[in-house]
Amino acid sequence: MNRAAVYHMPGSQYSFAYGEQELRIRLRTAKDDVEQVTLIYAVKYEWLQERKTVVMQKSFSDALFDYYTAALYVPDPRIGYVFYLKSGQEAYYYSEEGLTVDYDHEKSYYNFFQYPYINSIDVHRPVDWCDRAVFYQIFIDRFCMGNTHKDTAYIDRRWGQIPDPKGFYGGDLQGIIQKLGYLQGLGVTAIYLTPVFRSPSNHKYDTIDYYTVDAMFGSNEDLRRLMQEAHGRGIRVILDAVFNHCSMYCPQFQDVIEQGKNSRYFDWFIIHGERPDVQRCNYECFAACNYMPKWNTNNVQVQDYLLNVALYWMRECGIDGWRLDVADEVSHDFWRRFRKEVKRISPQAILIGESWHDANAWLRGDEFDGIMNYSFTKACIDFFAKGTRTAQSFCGRLSELLMRNTDQVDQMMLNLLDSHDTERFLTLVGEDRAKLRCALAVLFFFPGMPCICYGTEIGMVGEYEPDSRRTFDWNEEHWDRELQETVRKLAKLRKEKMGSGVKLYTQGDLFVIERGDLRLAVNNTGQALRLQGETWYTIVAARSFAVFERDREEMI
Amino acid sequence: MNRAAVYHMPGSQYSFAYGEQELRIRLRTAKDDVEQVTLIYAVKYEWLQERKTVVMQKSFSDALFDYYTAALYVPDPRIGYVFYLKSGQEAYYYSEEGLTVDYDHEKSYYNFFQYPYINSIDVHRPVDWCDRAVFYQIFIDRFCMGNTHKDTAYIDRRWGQIPDPKGFYGGDLQGIIQKLGYLQGLGVTAIYLTPVFRSPSNHKYDTIDYYTVDAMFGSNEDLRRLMQEAHGRGIRVILDAVFNHCSMYCPQFQDVIEQGKNSRYFDWFIIHGERPDVQRCNYECFAACNYMPKWNTNNVQVQDYLLNVALYWMRECGIDGWRLDVADEVSHDFWRRFRKEVKRISPQAILIGESWHDANAWLRGDEFDGIMNYSFTKACIDFFAKGTRTAQSFCGRLSELLMRNTDQVDQMMLNLLDSHDTERFLTLVGEDRAKLRCALAVLFFFPGMPCICYGTEIGMVGEYEPDSRRTFDWNEEHWDRELQETVRKLAKLRKEKMGSGVKLYTQGDLFVIERGDLRLAVNNTGQALRLQGETWYTIVAARSFAVFERDREEMI
Repeated sequence: MNRAAVYHMPGSQYSFAYGEQELRIRLRTAKDDVEQVTLIYAVKYEWLQERKTVVMQKSFSDALFDYYTAALYVPDPRIGYVFYLKSGQEAYYYSEEGLTVDYDHEKSYYNFFQYPYINSIDVHRPVDWCDRAVFYQIFIDRFCMGNTHKDTAYIDRRWGQIPDPKGFYGGDLQGIIQKLGYLQGLGVTAIYLTPVFRSPSNHKYDTIDYYTVDAMFGSNEDLRRLMQEAHGRGIRVILDAVFNHCSMYCPQFQDVIEQGKNSRYFDWFIIHGERPDVQRCNYECFAACNYMPKWNTNNVQVQDYLLNVALYWMRECGIDGWRLDVADEVSHDFWRRFRKEVKRISPQAILIGESWHDANAWLRGDEFDGIMNYSFTKACIDFFAKGTRTAQSFCGRLSELLMRNTDQVDQMMLNLLDSHDTERFLTLVGEDRAKLRCALAVLFFFPGMPCICYGTEIGMVGEYEPDSRRTFDWNEEHWDRELQETVRKLAKLRKEKMGSGVKLYTQGDLFVIERGDLRLAVNNTGQALRLQGETWYTIVAARSFAVFERDREEMI
Repeated sequence: MNRAAVYHMPGSQYSFAYGEQELRIRLRTAKDDVEQVTLIYAVKYEWLQERKTVVMQKSFSDALFDYYTAALYVPDPRIGYVFYLKSGQEAYYYSEEGLTVDYDHEKSYYNFFQYPYINSIDVHRPVDWCDRAVFYQIFIDRFCMGNTHKDTAYIDRRWGQIPDPKGFYGGDLQGIIQKLGYLQGLGVTAIYLTPVFRSPSNHKYDTIDYYTVDAMFGSNEDLRRLMQEAHGRGIRVILDAVFNHCSMYCPQFQDVIEQGKNSRYFDWFIIHGERPDVQRCNYECFAACNYMPKWNTNNVQVQDYLLNVALYWMRECGIDGWRLDVADEVSHDFWRRFRKEVKRISPQAILIGESWHDANAWLRGDEFDGIMNYSFTKACIDFFAKGTRTAQSFCGRLSELLMRNTDQVDQMMLNLLDSHDTERFLTLVGEDRAKLRCALAVLFFFPGMPCICYGTEIGMVGEYEPDSRRTFDWNEEHWDRELQETVRKLAKLRKEKMGSGVKLYTQGDLFVIERGDLRLAVNNTGQALRLQGETWYTIVAARSFAVFERDREEMI
């Protein structure tokens, strides 16, 4: 047995409460190395009187590891546990003291793993509507211009023209309202709007005034109406919380520029010196952008200010959650307060952090619900675009990603193929729409919430920004109907039939995801492949996918 | 290379801020498996422009693993990093995508490990005085009776008599005050007092009134005086926060017994039914003790109540921190509030949780500073008492324990050989005082704070409770002067000479701890052993320890 590969960590994604009486346990071993893993557990005060055992399921595998799982019903949630691993002649107990041939039950109180109590307030609860959610990301300036009466002097680019970094096209909230029917028809159930508040840029990630919708996009009243009309169609809307930094033109920073240390806002930023100097950029900012000074979210006043912004818009407009910009550079302390306050107003609001990396430290139930899952994006790029992953290694990588966090986090991940911050996926796959359709199928079947970047469904292309932020082409004759139909079909399946269970595996070069009774088979090769059932087989054509219901050989 | 053994986890004890500009990174590999580990890092926004490398040190090893460490000075704390592992012909990059032969720097923003920012408010700061602290645990009823004028009717056992579970001996706060000089002489710098508040039991872990010192022990004024006199002698005092449960006789629970669901305190407990029934114990309690109903620390009112207790005593008496009873069954949410409020009043107050297990989930900087380190206790029992660990496996186990948490947590662990909840260590080693002296040396040299259970220094013995809770024998003729001298000497070394660096290793059967310029060699065998320096050697006698200063062959 490869003993150095065996891993478990109490109080992590390897041992977590899924509800007040449900404990989920994982164990990792080297791949194909262990025959059976048994979990031995008990109410810890009754270890010597009454222990239970359960054989763990090998649920996921990646290149190096197998992951075993068990779900325990624990009416008395004060649990001690050890593992028993068997492989041929070798057998070990695995406790906090590692792998041992024997285990001294009399002294177990010193070294069993434990989940000492499930306090209800600590349970990370899934947001109900995530299960069926289909997200659609809208970069507002480029989606649709609905208000033809507004002052259009700021518009300096013609709709359809290839973007430059700073151009304006005129998209606005009224445009989105007009297209809600279109989105509903596509199967969209939730919109992630890039920032709406007053800001000089086209992207509006440099906020000047958090309490006012930018006039280019409309009014506060327009936002309220968008929310109402979206809700009327069963579509939720989340806004972009840009709380890591603001615009250098926001009044607080301007006050510090004027008054230096005498400004009451001096400590709202992190300034290395007496006074901010925009040329020298002697203050913390986002990336190297001197026009985006960083908020000091260690400062309770700043925390209060930003918190009030969030709560204001929740109360004012009933928004359904927040996407949190550059979330991993903001203080944990702030996010903990933020989560508590937001969930107090609306337990069903969702919090999606922007982090491009392993964000486990933010996903323990006290900060975010999920993140924008760029690790998923990268895996899809490697498999479908670059061809640097086989079906096997793609399957392994996705499995590994699922094991990175708890089940509830996996369910609330915002999975995406692309966004305003990446190349368009269709461009990355060399405009091979068959590949994009296959990737979309994976996107919709993978645990978590699929998020489509506006226009993906009509075949929009684009290199890295600004090219990826082209305008939506509303001329229906230019649309890729097949892509659109694929999205519509996948959204419908997700809404109507997708189970919560998940299995990932390969059959030869076919990549398969099972979700409850539904089975997706993806053929990313240039040849037709045979999918084998117990009593039947079927052919999945080259570069295509097929969906089956359990025990039926018919595609649906 | 055993690739399955390689482990790193961002945002954990493998990657943590030690200060606002210091990042500490760890990597685990299989033991003796890798020749060199290099850390490649950069400000993440400058990855393609300017990367640094540092060769990591192999700092610790256990039975299966080597642990490599590096400390990075990061004036711009937005860090991305990957590892480069080399072993013979094999070499791998290690990123969030695992071990790969090549690494695509162009796409590093998708998969480097990262520490995206160090926000000052999130930094787990070491409490300054821990470095030199020598703790002494006092079980009050059994230490010393100082007030001879009190109502002694409750005393039902003669001082020196072997304890029964429920007996009272008369120890009190005035007794402790009288013995402060003794403790100071011993080198004690901090006292951990078991509970002092009103309670019917001798241990007082079942509190009736959190605002009143129990009359058996004295008055609130006595506690205040104890604090003043201790502080006057440079001795800090921490109290026992029994916030998981109370006594069934506490007014809130009594009110619920009387009024059932009509009581305003009904939701302060977790009751399965309309009314608590002490016979059936239809409510959550500590262990199976119906007389200790569990507080519902999910309830904000309960949180407020207990928080106010803690803050009251900090303001009232200037206590130096809290030992948190059954801390792992109380809600994380409560402890996060608790930490914030306590540290707001006194950043130098220390919070030590009672958890007998891997408590990493409570030791991430937002809850406790350290715990009572019973895993250390168990390792010492195995090595010194049971003989089930060799010097090598003892060294490995202690190394593993250090790698379980961040460096600052390791420095704030309350290390102990025994407590009121275990057998006396001297009893466990068959009353072999030489073994106890060796164990004490390890206790004082190991990172963290040594905690001596009252009377250890005079050779007190005792089986599991109640026997371990015997009365202190103040007849000096009965004292073990050699033991006492050992404690005094070790406390002095700790105060005057111990460095903060730490190395653990073995030389044959000798177990060695280096702390800065000091070196401790422990010989737990029955034969004299040779300790080899670069240009000298010396003999460490059987069952003894020796302390050296660097580059000197003289024992001190």
